[in-house]
Order: sequence, then structure tokens, then C-alpha cells
Amino acid sequence: MANQTEGKGAVTAAGHRVAPVHTDPDDVSLLAALSALADPVRLTLVRELAGSDDWTRACGSFDVPVGKAALSHHFTVLRGAGLVEQRDQGAKRINRLRTEEFEARFPGLLALVLRADDVG
Amino acid sequence: MANQTEGKGAVTAAGHRVAPVHTDPDDVSLLAALSALADPVRLTLVRELAGSDDWTRACGSFDVPVGKAALSHHFTVLRGAGLVEQRDQGAKRINRLRTEEFEARFPGLLALVLRADDVG
Repeated sequence: MANQTEGKGAVTAAGHRVAPVHTDPDDVSLLAALSALADPVRLTLVRELAGSDDWTRACGSFDVPVGKAALSHHFTVLRGAGLVEQRDQGAKRINRLRTEEFEARFPGLLALVLRADDVG
Repeated sequence: MANQTEGKGAVTAAGHRVAPVHTDPDDVSLLAALSALADPVRLTLVRELAGSDDWTRACGSFDVPVGKAALSHHFTVLRGAGLVEQRDQGAKRINRLRTEEFEARFPGLLALVLRADDVG
């Protein structure tokens, strides 16, 4: 089941799931960071993660109105922007918001996003 | 000439140019602000405006690789995000970055964008 949420190439020939690829926040451009956050679904994911302990939230646990393929894409964008770290735990992929690293790269940006009183 | 840079409906029946419509930064959503800034052309416009005195830069004076229609669209987005104020001065449309108002609405965001050491 879990593999169905992944894009092309995410499953090895042996049927094992490929570990998620991460981008170091130091290598993230300002445009990539802004683009990653300029989306209502990803804003919700980031905010829910910010309110949860590290490694406690599986990808399927978020209250967002998108299907599995779209959700997988959103997490790929968040990983690529240095915002989210993921690891596989059994059939689940669990998440951590990279609060400190992202803050070091873009001081104040995550705080602004989390502080904002509006959804959109 | 100047009218040709405007979109549909920007010229009155009498041939007068319609004054630009502005959005108060207080009415701008976080998503709109992030989306406005998550574009390389608009980032360039904002940064060039930040380095210029108010009302000294006409729309055609920016070094961006886009045509007039696209440029007009980018300025519309910037106005809609509360980032830019425009007024017509003869055949030119001149600009001002709304630094203080935008800062009051999204503290630190503009500074982050201007401070960033990379273009993208």
C-alpha cells in the first residue's frame, strides 16, 4: 500500500522502498523556500508538523484534502526545500520538521509562517 | 505606447489609462505574499526597487528578461500583495516599494528577501 503513494522509481526491483532523498537547508535557494511555503496544503503540513513532536507523524496522518500521489509530491517539495526530514518505519513514513536547520538558513521565515494568523 | 503595456480593460473608452488598483498590505494573505515573492522576476523587481528612491523607477526601467505584458502582470501581482505602489506620471508609471507597510504586515519577510545572498 505504502509504495502506491510513491512516484516512479520509488520502489526497487526487489520491492523495497527507496529511502527519501533530502536536501540540506544550506543548499536551498530562497526561491525554493518561498515556493515550498507558498501553497496551502504545504503550509498546513508544516504547521501541523510544528505542533507535533519529531517523528510522531506519518504522512497519512495529516488533515489535507489531497490524494496520496499529490500528498507524496508535496512532501517531496518540502524535503527539497529543507523543511522536512523523513524516514521509513515499517510501512509508515514518518516526519520531522527541520526547524533549527531551516531557521539557520532563512532566519525568521518559519516563525513568520507559523505565527501568521490566517490560513491563506 | 504606455497603454500597450496594460492588460485588457486598462484603458477607458476615452483612451485614458485606468489608475492602478492597489491592495492594502493589511488585507494581504500570507499565501499571496509568499507567492508574490516566489518568482525570480518579481524578486528582481523588489530588490531593484529596494535599492532605489521612492517614485524614481518607471516600470520600463528594470533589468528583467520579460516582455511588456508579462512585466505588467508581475507588477499587478506585486500590487496585489501589497508590495508595490504605483502612480502614473505622464506616459510613465512610476513605482514605490511599500517597505514600511509590508514590514508591519509580515515582519522580517522583506528583510529576509533583500538580505538573501542568492538570486534564486
